[in-house]
Amino acid sequence: MEKIDSLIHAKWIITCDNNNVLENHALAIKNGKIHDILPSQKAREQYQANSEQHFKTHAITPGFINSHTHIAMNLFRGLADDLELMDWLNNYIWPAEGKWVDNTFVHDASQFAMAEMIRAGTTCFNDMYFFMDATAKAAQSAGMRAHLGMTIMDVPTAWAKTTEEYFTKAIEFYQQYKQNDYVTPTLAPHSTYTLSKESLLRVKELADEYKLKINIHLQEAPSEISQALEKYGCRPLKLLDDIGMVSPNLIAIHMTQLDESDFTILQKSRPNIVHCPESNMKLASGACPVERLTKLGINVALGTDGAASNNDLDMMSEMRSAAFLGKLTTMDPKAVSAEQALKMATIHGAKALGIDHYTGSLYKGKAADFIAINLEQIETQPLYHPMSAIVYAASRQQVTDVWVAGKQLLKNRELQTLDEKELLAKAQRWRKKIINM
Amino acid sequence: MEKIDSLIHAKWIITCDNNNVLENHALAIKNGKIHDILPSQKAREQYQANSEQHFKTHAITPGFINSHTHIAMNLFRGLADDLELMDWLNNYIWPAEGKWVDNTFVHDASQFAMAEMIRAGTTCFNDMYFFMDATAKAAQSAGMRAHLGMTIMDVPTAWAKTTEEYFTKAIEFYQQYKQNDYVTPTLAPHSTYTLSKESLLRVKELADEYKLKINIHLQEAPSEISQALEKYGCRPLKLLDDIGMVSPNLIAIHMTQLDESDFTILQKSRPNIVHCPESNMKLASGACPVERLTKLGINVALGTDGAASNNDLDMMSEMRSAAFLGKLTTMDPKAVSAEQALKMATIHGAKALGIDHYTGSLYKGKAADFIAINLEQIETQPLYHPMSAIVYAASRQQVTDVWVAGKQLLKNRELQTLDEKELLAKAQRWRKKIINM
Repeated sequence: MEKIDSLIHAKWIITCDNNNVLENHALAIKNGKIHDILPSQKAREQYQANSEQHFKTHAITPGFINSHTHIAMNLFRGLADDLELMDWLNNYIWPAEGKWVDNTFVHDASQFAMAEMIRAGTTCFNDMYFFMDATAKAAQSAGMRAHLGMTIMDVPTAWAKTTEEYFTKAIEFYQQYKQNDYVTPTLAPHSTYTLSKESLLRVKELADEYKLKINIHLQEAPSEISQALEKYGCRPLKLLDDIGMVSPNLIAIHMTQLDESDFTILQKSRPNIVHCPESNMKLASGACPVERLTKLGINVALGTDGAASNNDLDMMSEMRSAAFLGKLTTMDPKAVSAEQALKMATIHGAKALGIDHYTGSLYKGKAADFIAINLEQIETQPLYHPMSAIVYAASRQQVTDVWVAGKQLLKNRELQTLDEKELLAKAQRWRKKIINM
Repeated sequence: MEKIDSLIHAKWIITCDNNNVLENHALAIKNGKIHDILPSQKAREQYQANSEQHFKTHAITPGFINSHTHIAMNLFRGLADDLELMDWLNNYIWPAEGKWVDNTFVHDASQFAMAEMIRAGTTCFNDMYFFMDATAKAAQSAGMRAHLGMTIMDVPTAWAKTTEEYFTKAIEFYQQYKQNDYVTPTLAPHSTYTLSKESLLRVKELADEYKLKINIHLQEAPSEISQALEKYGCRPLKLLDDIGMVSPNLIAIHMTQLDESDFTILQKSRPNIVHCPESNMKLASGACPVERLTKLGINVALGTDGAASNNDLDMMSEMRSAAFLGKLTTMDPKAVSAEQALKMATIHGAKALGIDHYTGSLYKGKAADFIAINLEQIETQPLYHPMSAIVYAASRQQVTDVWVAGKQLLKNRELQTLDEKELLAKAQRWRKKIINM
């Protein structure tokens, strides 16, 4: 018998590689990787495991990949809602950020957000914010995979006063984390309305030099299109395409405003797109045409956006919203199926982030990044199809266990690498400060 | 000191009568009614309670009123998804209903659905199905308020073979339950496409005779409009208005397809409307213009529809979807605020059902129908505004306690009037039968 670290048996294993739902199978884990996936009976004959766990009422899926978020905004969750975008930004979010965002804030907020994410089955996130070092440290200690966008803007913040300073700090951060098991630096030019064409070009050159992914908020709302037409005489996507930034290396976030000229560019240049349905609905931005993009073979991943505009980091609810919105906007109930939504939240996220060779699906040799969801609850019974139960009926509270690289981060709903009580107390201290500012 | 049954103290009490969020207040309960609402300190001085409960991290709100559902379809949850409506009905739902729906099925399914509803804070539901007596018995034993629609159709089912039989059985059911503390019979002509004008007229006469509310699926999807135009030469709402059925006594369900002529009728005749955003999205039916209707002073309540088409009976997720969809369809982030969504799920439901004089908000003299939601969880912290936390961030699993008429149905997440284990076992037995049919 071959020695391995652990055997994880489950009622169902959903690989997200294809449409396979494996019943009564086991994951054999060795050195943080999926060493084998096979029927439970066979696994017991073939492997001698240091530990064995049984999930008799659960589905195991790949961990969720939140492909766009600003996790440190968690401490501003629900500070202001139901407002016009500019009112919300000018009178609530920007003043709060200006006053509070620093290294300590970002560290505490990141830890708090990681607790929320782990409790909801997210194992990897693609962030965009400031003081990334604080988030990087929190991610390493929590054991989560963090893709950290190094923000570039022509707008001063507490993080950087000039465009030059943003670039300098980005390069510093990149040098520090270019080889890290948990942290991957990416470039995050904020948008075409907060950067000049010159700054965007410089981002593109830097990305080429260091082989970095580029994240950008793109064509999120109608106002962004009209502003670009006025400033540049073309739509934002066209502007980026003209400078050579649109490629499979680009992660274009939101993309709710697409016309035929955009589709031509997208088909030619094939960037990755991140759909954030709940943020787009709550801020009344529009809806990304996921079904059409998917049919064109363009990779669409899923993100929650920041908790200040969603108001959570819940990928399960995001999958459901993506399926619902996809059907409504096409008036086709077959659009954005449960299976498609689950892939957007897992393997499509991994593709967007360029890490699908080692995570995002359950496959021999990939990292042991997976979660267990208890489906034997009143809310998900009777159960005819596990994918339908997960996307259309389950809640994030049904995620019971979470692993990243074979290390368990959540065990029977208990956080293993973060202290829940301490985090709740810290959040309340921050709340008191922020509400009295 | 005045003697009362119980004092329920909470961090927040959200009355839903106005915009009041009362901090550190208590509900004084006597004989199943709200005897008083006052600051906790005062309550302790003024009342001598047989029992006292403290909810130091909770918000108390009125129990949710699910204003449109088919609860017995719970056992078909997730049987088939992501299909064209007619494929779904003809090849999955109708065959399953034809084969399985009888008194026993409806009783078991109703109990199962009530467990789901109580666990999610619903205290009252407005149903439309067959074998209503089975649901009525289950509701009385579970302690829920049930408005049971007596279905009328010109289509034969296991319940009734002819239109005549539907009417006969409806009158029988009405006679049996016309004076019942928990059960209220209503008339439920299915739709304008399953009833002749003659049958609709007869429903209207019966409603007048017995003073019954009328529930009808109305203008749910584009196909319904074109069918009515072809059959009657007018839109469904106009047809009903012509026979005098459109009044504050009518509960018009769905209403996603509205043109200016419809708005004229609605403003004149003021029916109640039930918005089912998740079902409408999932089945790609359309979106009810909630914001415009509300601004016209038309009462809009909220429903989940059946779990076969949603796939849950979760009013908290429905509130969030209503707010999201309301903002997206108007492209106005101020539309359908958290407060408005919470009222749609409570007092607006009570108004639609004609029971706002005794439930739907927390007010002296009203029934003690209320729930406690624990907001001191990672997912709803930090907390700046309790209504925002409930609508935009909380999940139904945060509902810890539920009361109807002062009787506790859920206590610290444990069902008090239903046996969870037995229900799960029964659901699995039904699943085995249904999947092998």
